[in-house]
Amino acid sequence: MKNSIGREIPDFIPGLGKVTGFGGAFARKPVGRTAGAALSTCLPRADKLLASIETAIDAVGLKDGMTISFHHHFRNGDRILNRVVEAIAKKGIRDITLSPSSLNTVNDALIPYIEQGVITAIETSGARGKMGRFLTEGHLKKPLHIRSHGGRAQAIESGAIHIDVAFLGAPACDRYGNINGIQGQSACGSLGYAIQDAAYADQVVAITDNLMPHPLFPISIPQTQVDYIVVVDSIGDPAGIASGALRYTKDPKELLIAKYAADVMDYSGYLQQDFSMQLGSGGASMAVGRFIKTKMLERGITGSFGVGGMTGVFAEMMEEGLFKMMFDVQSFDIPAIDSIKKNSNHLEMSASYYANPHNSGAIVNNLDAVILSATEVDVDFNVNVITDSNGVIMGASGGHCDTAAGAKLTIVVAPLLRGRLPMVKDAVHTVVTPGETVDAIVTERGIAINPKRLDIIDNVKNSGLPIMSIHELKDIAYKLCGKPEAIQLSDEIVGVVEYRDGTIIDVIRRPKF
Amino acid sequence: MKNSIGREIPDFIPGLGKVTGFGGAFARKPVGRTAGAALSTCLPRADKLLASIETAIDAVGLKDGMTISFHHHFRNGDRILNRVVEAIAKKGIRDITLSPSSLNTVNDALIPYIEQGVITAIETSGARGKMGRFLTEGHLKKPLHIRSHGGRAQAIESGAIHIDVAFLGAPACDRYGNINGIQGQSACGSLGYAIQDAAYADQVVAITDNLMPHPLFPISIPQTQVDYIVVVDSIGDPAGIASGALRYTKDPKELLIAKYAADVMDYSGYLQQDFSMQLGSGGASMAVGRFIKTKMLERGITGSFGVGGMTGVFAEMMEEGLFKMMFDVQSFDIPAIDSIKKNSNHLEMSASYYANPHNSGAIVNNLDAVILSATEVDVDFNVNVITDSNGVIMGASGGHCDTAAGAKLTIVVAPLLRGRLPMVKDAVHTVVTPGETVDAIVTERGIAINPKRLDIIDNVKNSGLPIMSIHELKDIAYKLCGKPEAIQLSDEIVGVVEYRDGTIIDVIRRPKF
Repeated sequence: MKNSIGREIPDFIPGLGKVTGFGGAFARKPVGRTAGAALSTCLPRADKLLASIETAIDAVGLKDGMTISFHHHFRNGDRILNRVVEAIAKKGIRDITLSPSSLNTVNDALIPYIEQGVITAIETSGARGKMGRFLTEGHLKKPLHIRSHGGRAQAIESGAIHIDVAFLGAPACDRYGNINGIQGQSACGSLGYAIQDAAYADQVVAITDNLMPHPLFPISIPQTQVDYIVVVDSIGDPAGIASGALRYTKDPKELLIAKYAADVMDYSGYLQQDFSMQLGSGGASMAVGRFIKTKMLERGITGSFGVGGMTGVFAEMMEEGLFKMMFDVQSFDIPAIDSIKKNSNHLEMSASYYANPHNSGAIVNNLDAVILSATEVDVDFNVNVITDSNGVIMGASGGHCDTAAGAKLTIVVAPLLRGRLPMVKDAVHTVVTPGETVDAIVTERGIAINPKRLDIIDNVKNSGLPIMSIHELKDIAYKLCGKPEAIQLSDEIVGVVEYRDGTIIDVIRRPKF
Repeated sequence: MKNSIGREIPDFIPGLGKVTGFGGAFARKPVGRTAGAALSTCLPRADKLLASIETAIDAVGLKDGMTISFHHHFRNGDRILNRVVEAIAKKGIRDITLSPSSLNTVNDALIPYIEQGVITAIETSGARGKMGRFLTEGHLKKPLHIRSHGGRAQAIESGAIHIDVAFLGAPACDRYGNINGIQGQSACGSLGYAIQDAAYADQVVAITDNLMPHPLFPISIPQTQVDYIVVVDSIGDPAGIASGALRYTKDPKELLIAKYAADVMDYSGYLQQDFSMQLGSGGASMAVGRFIKTKMLERGITGSFGVGGMTGVFAEMMEEGLFKMMFDVQSFDIPAIDSIKKNSNHLEMSASYYANPHNSGAIVNNLDAVILSATEVDVDFNVNVITDSNGVIMGASGGHCDTAAGAKLTIVVAPLLRGRLPMVKDAVHTVVTPGETVDAIVTERGIAINPKRLDIIDNVKNSGLPIMSIHELKDIAYKLCGKPEAIQLSDEIVGVVEYRDGTIIDVIRRPKF
């Protein structure tokens, strides 16, 4: 059965059951009600403090087959996820569904627990490194379930993901369970993904290295949602949680792409007083900010709000008065963490507020423009950010398809070639973001505007920019490097890519390595 | 069938169905899951603005038998509730359940709609004035359903109250539905009660007289929960929304009671560094703050946090450094509204965070002391705040039973006599707060400590305070005024008082007027 973008999606996928194929970016209307967490109660002045992670696993009654969740705000500095799974494994618990907001290379350490059957299903935004390869090889019992950040929020709220126990790394936690992400040695800034888990999990365990007097302030996750608290030495390695200020790329090719992207945004008419914007955290997409900033200063215009995974570069633009507010689901570097700590107009938001398509309107719906990176794109403007040229899982869905669907103008930036490989192709290996939500593909050699955006085509036609059709772009790439060889695939489905609305936009089949 | 405090509660109450009698303040453990709001979706940049309240009623598909909710943060200045019900009536819709967080005398205007059958059920914290009398006379089709603020949050979250449509008065609302209560001509401060309604109602209509550019900031209720927006000339009369600064009483009797209460708190050992406190907004209970403040300054101690319906008096203590933080579910006067607007440690909280017994721990659970008023108390330490000496509904449950259950020390202040009527009696007419959660009754003539609090009895025994048994207190009252005549009651149940956990603690029977 082919879905609406022509991808072959079986009706039934072993390990996942019956699935629905993607039918268009806004085709699926939700029915029913949001899922509810288990009701709880807590006596006045009850002591929520437990001695260890092991005690907490006992206290929540964790057992075979349950789903546990984590947030990935500590990135490669995370010391929670591996530690909890290790403790679960030691207790002989098996068949766990792991449902983190994402995985990082630090989580390669989980591979043995997949081999042992402790973890038999994973739902995540992405996977990288050895884990990506391992999952692509099909070692996980059920297919890897990829969701975007908005799609995960949607799945949690609709009950498609039912979290039995959320284990939350808490940079600051008071004795009754109020939590924030901005105080302490493991400060990570926004706790946007964790907000969702805390609200919908049946039970919530806060794990902290910074137990503070009650009541802590500000409060990102309220005591009313936290059942147990465990104090450990360290929940994260600060060096891995956040780097120093992420700076603009100096790569000339990336800078050229960035300049083109800023120009497209400008000529398209979206660089106006009070515009709103999201920038991806990739080299070229972040560098667009530099050119946008110059244009804003030259023209004397200011923006309304920025959205994202937030970087110091963006926070700086707010401090300089170029943007009024920032909505932050995830703080990428130390300046961003400092900013959310000190600026009241740098707002923490939940993943649902950010990007859930099935609420009454996420903030991505209000975006004028978003600049996104890509692993590869195709002549239908479909974008892949999850598999590499060998078909191996090595990326993350993130907010890619969410912001593309929400923004008035979606620009995807990518080099035309990586090494000897074309990045504009006849068909991407895996579709994460459907072409119908992508307005422009910007490479160093040329720019293609989605044919359905006649308005933009008209606006850029006298810009002097190297505008061409997507087929011309692809032809240049193929001419330079040759047509890429098709990846030889087995029939085995090792992963599914779920669109933000809960339908399956693509499957990942095991390559014949 | 008698409940655990000896009140006769039928198993089945016409109009309400099967009910469960109160079984002790912490006896009921919740089972099941929180209720979910209807899933929704909203296209990017959809226009939520509707032309009128009438259009909004059409848009949400309001029909016979539905439940609609309102918040009472505008108190007697409210211009939303009556206006919406009037529009509903004009459309010929009937059999509506009205579920506001409370009613004020301004809502006496609803009486005709009850007579006409437009409104056939009311769930509220309380009722006053003509409405209170009218409801006591049994004109409403179903018994009036009284809940505390925490109990209402619990009922909404458990699904006992299912809100089809929440109509929210929004002092500031942007074009995509972000709301706060602190900006504009109708600023009311905290929107604590409305936060609950917005999160759990199937559909949410924001009604505002202050439409602001998107995105508004700060955000109390997010755009993700708001479906429609209606702009009207005025949502509230500022003079009715909040008075100037509520000041301490000058009544000598109230001041004496307040002084005694502060002394009881002091001798009981709860006036310690980092203590937390809630003060009711009644004359005597508010005046306790004055004596507490003097003691704090004399002793050089500071408190941790204050809770409540917030007044400027309390906010001032925070500004003076006497308290670190305030948790505010409802801002009572203009200085409190100003404070929540400008002080980041004056926190808005939802009704669930405030007082819901069925989450993982509301802030009332962390209270050291609460000072509460009473209409009348009895020898079992039960408290009535809902009916007067004629059995007529004239008050509100508020957070009375919630804070009493949560605080380590619950002091109830009341005059021993009002006119020629004893306020300490053999049995209160209506129990709102069970005696097991009340530690001390303080009157101008004497103080009774709950016999189960041997620790407090021991602590106050050499205080020089007029400590006596509750029976002695009652005897003094009866000696001075005579034993009050029993109210002659019919069998008809015109109201039920639900305890915060969803059980019925008392019923209100129609007096034989």
